[in-house]
Amino acid sequence: MVEEAFRETTVPPWRKQITARSVATSFVLSIIFNFIVCKLNLTTGVIPSLNVAAGLLGFAVVKGYSSMLEKCGLLKQPFTRQENTVIQTCVVASSGIAFSSGTASYLLGMSAKIAAQGDEGNTPINVKKLSIGWMICFLFAVSFVGLFSIVPLRKVMILRYKLTYPSGTATAYLINSFHTPKGAKLAKKQVALLFKSFCFSFVFAFFQWFYAAADGCGFANFPTFGPQALAQNFYFDFSSTYVGVGMICPYMVNISLLVGAVISWGIMWPLIENKKGDWYSADLSPSSLHGIQGYRVFIAISMMLGDDSPESFNTKQEKTDSSSIVLADEDYDAQRRLEFFLKDQIPNWAAFLGYVLLAIVSIIAVPFIFHQLKCLLQRLWLRPHRLVSSLELWKIRHHHLQFLVGLEHGGVIAGLASCGVMMSIVSTASDLMQDFKTGYLTLASPRSMFFSQVLGTAMGCLMSPLIFWFFYKAYSVGDPNGSYPAPYGLMYRGIALLGVEGISSFPKNCLKLAIIFFVIAIAMNLARELLQYYKCNVYKFIPSPMCMAIPFYLGGYFAIDMCVGSLILYVWQRRNKQKAHDYAPAMASGLICGESLWGVPAAILALAGVKAPMCMKFLTASVNQKVDKFLAG
Amino acid sequence: MVEEAFRETTVPPWRKQITARSVATSFVLSIIFNFIVCKLNLTTGVIPSLNVAAGLLGFAVVKGYSSMLEKCGLLKQPFTRQENTVIQTCVVASSGIAFSSGTASYLLGMSAKIAAQGDEGNTPINVKKLSIGWMICFLFAVSFVGLFSIVPLRKVMILRYKLTYPSGTATAYLINSFHTPKGAKLAKKQVALLFKSFCFSFVFAFFQWFYAAADGCGFANFPTFGPQALAQNFYFDFSSTYVGVGMICPYMVNISLLVGAVISWGIMWPLIENKKGDWYSADLSPSSLHGIQGYRVFIAISMMLGDDSPESFNTKQEKTDSSSIVLADEDYDAQRRLEFFLKDQIPNWAAFLGYVLLAIVSIIAVPFIFHQLKCLLQRLWLRPHRLVSSLELWKIRHHHLQFLVGLEHGGVIAGLASCGVMMSIVSTASDLMQDFKTGYLTLASPRSMFFSQVLGTAMGCLMSPLIFWFFYKAYSVGDPNGSYPAPYGLMYRGIALLGVEGISSFPKNCLKLAIIFFVIAIAMNLARELLQYYKCNVYKFIPSPMCMAIPFYLGGYFAIDMCVGSLILYVWQRRNKQKAHDYAPAMASGLICGESLWGVPAAILALAGVKAPMCMKFLTASVNQKVDKFLAG
Repeated sequence: MVEEAFRETTVPPWRKQITARSVATSFVLSIIFNFIVCKLNLTTGVIPSLNVAAGLLGFAVVKGYSSMLEKCGLLKQPFTRQENTVIQTCVVASSGIAFSSGTASYLLGMSAKIAAQGDEGNTPINVKKLSIGWMICFLFAVSFVGLFSIVPLRKVMILRYKLTYPSGTATAYLINSFHTPKGAKLAKKQVALLFKSFCFSFVFAFFQWFYAAADGCGFANFPTFGPQALAQNFYFDFSSTYVGVGMICPYMVNISLLVGAVISWGIMWPLIENKKGDWYSADLSPSSLHGIQGYRVFIAISMMLGDDSPESFNTKQEKTDSSSIVLADEDYDAQRRLEFFLKDQIPNWAAFLGYVLLAIVSIIAVPFIFHQLKCLLQRLWLRPHRLVSSLELWKIRHHHLQFLVGLEHGGVIAGLASCGVMMSIVSTASDLMQDFKTGYLTLASPRSMFFSQVLGTAMGCLMSPLIFWFFYKAYSVGDPNGSYPAPYGLMYRGIALLGVEGISSFPKNCLKLAIIFFVIAIAMNLARELLQYYKCNVYKFIPSPMCMAIPFYLGGYFAIDMCVGSLILYVWQRRNKQKAHDYAPAMASGLICGESLWGVPAAILALAGVKAPMCMKFLTASVNQKVDKFLAG
Repeated sequence: MVEEAFRETTVPPWRKQITARSVATSFVLSIIFNFIVCKLNLTTGVIPSLNVAAGLLGFAVVKGYSSMLEKCGLLKQPFTRQENTVIQTCVVASSGIAFSSGTASYLLGMSAKIAAQGDEGNTPINVKKLSIGWMICFLFAVSFVGLFSIVPLRKVMILRYKLTYPSGTATAYLINSFHTPKGAKLAKKQVALLFKSFCFSFVFAFFQWFYAAADGCGFANFPTFGPQALAQNFYFDFSSTYVGVGMICPYMVNISLLVGAVISWGIMWPLIENKKGDWYSADLSPSSLHGIQGYRVFIAISMMLGDDSPESFNTKQEKTDSSSIVLADEDYDAQRRLEFFLKDQIPNWAAFLGYVLLAIVSIIAVPFIFHQLKCLLQRLWLRPHRLVSSLELWKIRHHHLQFLVGLEHGGVIAGLASCGVMMSIVSTASDLMQDFKTGYLTLASPRSMFFSQVLGTAMGCLMSPLIFWFFYKAYSVGDPNGSYPAPYGLMYRGIALLGVEGISSFPKNCLKLAIIFFVIAIAMNLARELLQYYKCNVYKFIPSPMCMAIPFYLGGYFAIDMCVGSLILYVWQRRNKQKAHDYAPAMASGLICGESLWGVPAAILALAGVKAPMCMKFLTASVNQKVDKFLAG
């Protein structure tokens, strides 16, 4: 009986749900979350659900601001949960763009730097120079289509099929609880903890910066398990961001990552490297897709393609909460919700008109940006409505499109661009449906939701390329050994190359291994499904192939960070389950935000050419002796 | 009414208080505490009260052992608090010897390595080669005298004057509480925490070892506040031992240390170093007492001499507890205690006989060891009974003895040896009187106490030189830039030189500065006394000159560690005062013991010539560039 608590509270009309303060807060938080998502994208591509963090921060900002005004007697309008939902929706929409814009995946895959790593297809027509102008145009052209496409589907999905939309439901639960007295008290404590862990994470990242004067320096190269393990990318890199991410992700995700890292970097790659000169040419550059890097990328891709559980990253939080909500969905609640959900509708004809107009704009504009794409676009519009996660785009079924273009006509760019268009549309659509669910559960007007989504999407389209550009100029993005390897750039290009060249670009035995891992991934999923069907609880302990594949390219360091996060959570839960449940997401959010936001001053310093004053260097004892002798004279 | 709880418990006869298990436990714990004290002596010379740690560990070992036997049905004799007191006494006596044996102070001051730093008096007759044989003989000759001297005084001191003896009282309180059901439960939790923090500290020290392949490597050289601060000895050296020490010491001690470090290394030494070539010759070795080191040592000494509060290191724990005990000393308690205190007396004639015999042995033996001492010894026996702390020995009054010998006759060695003899006697006597107080309050027989003291002293005389020897062989003890600078070695030699040479060995303006700081120290003490007399609470915030002087020679790094300990304690107390009070000493003891005990395997590894595999090196950005170029080819 959630709505029972709000019986006395009037719901403001939809124009009063989008206020100046909520737009300003959304704007500030959008910048913050775009930074965070961009940084995560460029380091590992593992993005946890930041809904809880956005919810807490949004609430904290407006609540702080409005209680300040209240003290001065200047508060005209109380802070409502509908307003909160509007902020939440706007922030989620704009940071969703940061992910689906593909700045770290398909767009980066078009750049000359990534193309150089692929050898094959490194021709002018298969490379597109990144520039901020066309990136913004492209995003504006494609991102709004999805938004309009879901408006007519809204009612069917939420009212008739009563689909859960876990993150939307969890967010609504959070927002509702914030606006009850007991929830507000808890929220205050959560925000305090978030702030503390944010400060810790920020200061610690700042502290780390001092010791990282050059590549190979600093905490990020700490050989925690010795220099041999470091060489195989096994070390704890003191990244509070990924410790926080580990605390949010389910245990099984983190363990899967670790298992994947051990299998790949611990066992397979050393074995394959022993075959250097036999399986692949010894004088290739270490980043060439024809060498060891090829095994890493293609085996990872095949394992991801074999997996069918793209939702593995959904947080535990969401999963547990959603079920409790569905049960609490009582009659009075349902009635109130229905009433407000149907109140300010967006007419179907308006949605349809918007959709058609935007589609026409896209069809005209996108081939101007990617001239390699012209003949292909029509086919693509056939299926934008499937509400699949972005990861499903990698499925083989769309690769045949690329064959129509071919390498000599710029097939790689065409493939990446088509992937981008689909990814933008589909993932926006999926994200936004979540928001409608949130709105439904917090009695926010569909119309205010829609406008806040439009606003958020516009912000995202503008901010996401700008922030990416900021990192792109400040650091050597895409360098496999740098701080920002942006793994999905090469992966997406690898997939596109696959679609165009087929398997001819594989090094020796790579196809065999890729097939084996493809089959293993399918078998693992099958085993899980079967065990689950027969109610055998062991299914929980089958790792996720998707997660296992990520460290194949990157190594285990972030898996170790994330497992440290799991360990902290585990110990906390053992000590006090309720406290861990209430506070762990807040603490994790703080850890993620703090270090990520240190990225802003760090990037500014890097752009300004300011280097850290010191280098914490790790040398073996023998090298150290040489260095000491050298330094002594 | 402490004894009320023990009304039903019979007190075993004194022969049953010294059991095989208690002797075995004492032996093992004596080794551990000798290691810890020796390591602390050799690093900074700051030794906190380890009574609580000894009490907890002694209880844990015997209790664990006896409850194991009880489960098997083999326990013949229950574990009594008298037995516990015997263990405590024995361990305290033996680890007391580790401090008063002066292996890190006056004995080390005789060695050639320290003499070389002093320039003046670096002649064969003023140097004595350290060897384990004569050190053990010397300790046996002098350490027992004090023990016999206090036996007749015992009754007067404890019964008539009812002197408090804070650490003895606190220990008794602890032991009594362990043997009540409620206390045992708390003790169990305390031991568990001690064990956890011990493990953490040990593992962390072990981890640090891997990165310290050579001098200047590892966490101990972490430029936490930047390279300039590191050069002035300001950094956090990640020593859990000193964090633990900081948790045990009162806030004011740690703040005094920090203030002293800032005044000396932050302000004075940089200013004096600017006068290099003017105030002192620029081509002196950096460790010469005629250069900057002279200012450090002599100003520190003068400030210590000006201070009159040698008990500053007594722990807060003791101070607060003791008062509560004295108040609780009710009639029934007093009666029971008196009964047992007077039961098994040691006859005065036996004590007198022992004292005379031992004195004769010493008078004959010691001049054989230090032939420079022959004519001096008689005067020394005039005042062995003053129960002063070892630090008071530094007072000027005994220096005139050294003038009688003079530098050309080996006056330095004579001075150091005489200091050593006094220190041994006086500090043993003072320590042991504490034990009698403990015995009085736990109804342990004076006779069993006496024998356990004899046993502990014998263990100490044997172990202390052996363990010192172990470190002395494994490391470069006394090197001002090494891990074991043993600051008091040079300080004691400086004092002895002062006594022999007078102020002629001072560099320019050093005397002026020394006098200024001597006066400042006196003024500070005077101010404190006055403020305290007029009940003005500000007196608590006047730092202790003694504590301020310690970092003059060593720098601020351990003061920073200790302030971190204070900070932890402060935050803990803010959160939960009772828990902090109950558990902080246990946690601190664990931190101290863990890292100190890692010293054992570390020293063995160093003796075996095993170097750590890696070096964590800190370079400035420019040096790092050079090194990178050098390493690249």
